[in-house]
Amino acid sequence: MREVAILGVGQTQFGELWDRSFREIGIEAGFQALESSKLSSRDLSALYIGNMASGAFIDQEHVAPLVLDYSGLSGHHFPSVRVEAGEASGAVALAQAYLAVASGEYDFVVVGGAEKMTDVPEDRGSAISSSTMDQEWERVFGASMPALWALAARRHMIDHGTKREHFARLSVLDHENGSKNPLAHYRNKITLEQVLGANAVAEPLGMLDCAPSSDGAAAVVLGPLDRARKFTDTPIRIAASQIATDTMALMHRRDITTLDSTVLAAKRAFQRAKLQPSQIPLAEIHDSYSIAGLMALEDLGFYQKGEAGKALANGEVGIGTRLAINTSGGLKAQGQPFGAVGIAQVVEIVRQLRGEAGARQVSGATVGLAHNVGGTGATSVVHILERVN
Amino acid sequence: MREVAILGVGQTQFGELWDRSFREIGIEAGFQALESSKLSSRDLSALYIGNMASGAFIDQEHVAPLVLDYSGLSGHHFPSVRVEAGEASGAVALAQAYLAVASGEYDFVVVGGAEKMTDVPEDRGSAISSSTMDQEWERVFGASMPALWALAARRHMIDHGTKREHFARLSVLDHENGSKNPLAHYRNKITLEQVLGANAVAEPLGMLDCAPSSDGAAAVVLGPLDRARKFTDTPIRIAASQIATDTMALMHRRDITTLDSTVLAAKRAFQRAKLQPSQIPLAEIHDSYSIAGLMALEDLGFYQKGEAGKALANGEVGIGTRLAINTSGGLKAQGQPFGAVGIAQVVEIVRQLRGEAGARQVSGATVGLAHNVGGTGATSVVHILERVN
Repeated sequence: MREVAILGVGQTQFGELWDRSFREIGIEAGFQALESSKLSSRDLSALYIGNMASGAFIDQEHVAPLVLDYSGLSGHHFPSVRVEAGEASGAVALAQAYLAVASGEYDFVVVGGAEKMTDVPEDRGSAISSSTMDQEWERVFGASMPALWALAARRHMIDHGTKREHFARLSVLDHENGSKNPLAHYRNKITLEQVLGANAVAEPLGMLDCAPSSDGAAAVVLGPLDRARKFTDTPIRIAASQIATDTMALMHRRDITTLDSTVLAAKRAFQRAKLQPSQIPLAEIHDSYSIAGLMALEDLGFYQKGEAGKALANGEVGIGTRLAINTSGGLKAQGQPFGAVGIAQVVEIVRQLRGEAGARQVSGATVGLAHNVGGTGATSVVHILERVN
Repeated sequence: MREVAILGVGQTQFGELWDRSFREIGIEAGFQALESSKLSSRDLSALYIGNMASGAFIDQEHVAPLVLDYSGLSGHHFPSVRVEAGEASGAVALAQAYLAVASGEYDFVVVGGAEKMTDVPEDRGSAISSSTMDQEWERVFGASMPALWALAARRHMIDHGTKREHFARLSVLDHENGSKNPLAHYRNKITLEQVLGANAVAEPLGMLDCAPSSDGAAAVVLGPLDRARKFTDTPIRIAASQIATDTMALMHRRDITTLDSTVLAAKRAFQRAKLQPSQIPLAEIHDSYSIAGLMALEDLGFYQKGEAGKALANGEVGIGTRLAINTSGGLKAQGQPFGAVGIAQVVEIVRQLRGEAGARQVSGATVGLAHNVGGTGATSVVHILERVN
């Protein structure tokens, strides 16, 4: 397989974009990514789109040729492919595009992630958001996504001595970072007291432990590493791109305080990249719920099980420490347009590795990790990105 | 890229399967495909699923890990990926799996296509079926899929002298072939008079010009060609796998009597396979509407524009002629479970090339073509398959 690099990145504002349609945000992110490289649309050979639920949210399937068409590129007639893996749709789309370029079949490919979530009433939105869990064995009995993550949180508190305050700190950290990201859905800082005092959603999780529903899109341009210098001064190599899966329903897991899919995707990715977790100074982790982020810190190998909470409480994690996480603001503050999340994480890592992250810039990082989860962990994806010197 | 072969195939009954769920039919097709090769589930490295609209039809996204899980294979934790491209979801999924094996990343992969369409009321089903056209520029003005294909039919009649009887013959041919396929949704033969006399859906198209809504699943197992003999006596090589796209809305096409996406996918596929249309004795073509099938015969290069109608009327096409098409019964008679269609076409070609097609067996074919379309042609996919001697 050929080595593959990221040549350009783009991202729209995340938030409630009521005045803009799915196709409009898809196009904006794609063209930004194209323009940030020196590629022209004539150089492209395929488009991939990560999207979770356009059929349910906007009554529109077949969104890959839709975005291609309204980008003015339908005349090129090149392949366009939508990939869906719940909230991990973005990273799974990236993984497919990576293989397509690595195989030699395509040279330059745009991979976008997009979701338009706020045009439906809130109850309908909740229902759609629950469609990544098992309908027949979870949803039908009344389970919601926050309820399932609350079960994991309670179990984690019982089994590992984790405290409510521990995971609440992730939301504080996300908002702190998000305040420095002009594209973030929320730019206000919040305090630990506010997180702990917020209305309960599914105890122990409150309103401020849960990432919002957002509209937004993000995109990257991929190409063969050996041709990357022609199109960018700072190619970012994809050192690893790994997907792992697990049972759909939480009740079938051997242990609900860990995502085996994340453990395995990370293990395989570190192997491929010939790196250890301790060598990663920069990570975007999937914290759709604060407890999910805490578990990810453990499952990715940054902390032993039961240690991440204390690390968060002691301020061992964040910009300026040995492990900067969610410099974008994470899912909680940057926002959570399902299909876009996995690509936006990669966009942030690329910006950091290129030194283009503005007020939230981490210094000296040459390698970073992105971690995207679908459902309650039936799909996990880990990408490791490396700046090429 | 490595050469890739199909090692096994499987398919469920197509029809109104009210007593069986999405996951059940997905599992049945997958295991059949696995059993028809000599692979064990331990040999597998990934699962791909082509599905168009499970979110809308059964309120369930994230169907790739769902099927993997209920196949009892979640313990392997390998990647599972859903691909969506409207009614071409099956073939686009196959194209992605092909690239993944060709790249060397995965060795043995199951690719399934599945759709459960008949559990929703008919009006809801029609709405979902229209979600592959452009919502904002077609659907909102009242366009339906049969109405758009009827426009193409009228234009074809005016521009190319095609007669109503010409495309009606495709439905007769499909039902003739379907009567010999035990898995077909419809096994009754129909006459030209019945097609012409059926109630109008969107003139000139009547009830019997339109493929049904069906439930069903189909699957194939892929692997590297150089290891194929270990798992099957009759490996079928994927000689070409090509996707092309076009505008979403019909009104933006340069000519609505031709699908440029099909023309280009076919051209690229023939180039890759180093074959001419005249060398293909066997094809499954996407005739969701009879006129679509007629246009496909021209766009794939089997006939000049305006000649396919006469060829159909003269009985030049069909089992026993130089070009056997839709030996499965095609979309009209075998049925049209959206995400499964593109895989079922490939299953039929493989069965024919292996000499396992029973009463509908074509004699002596060593190469065949499968043609799958999404929407009104925003996506087209062509696969060329070859028996390895």
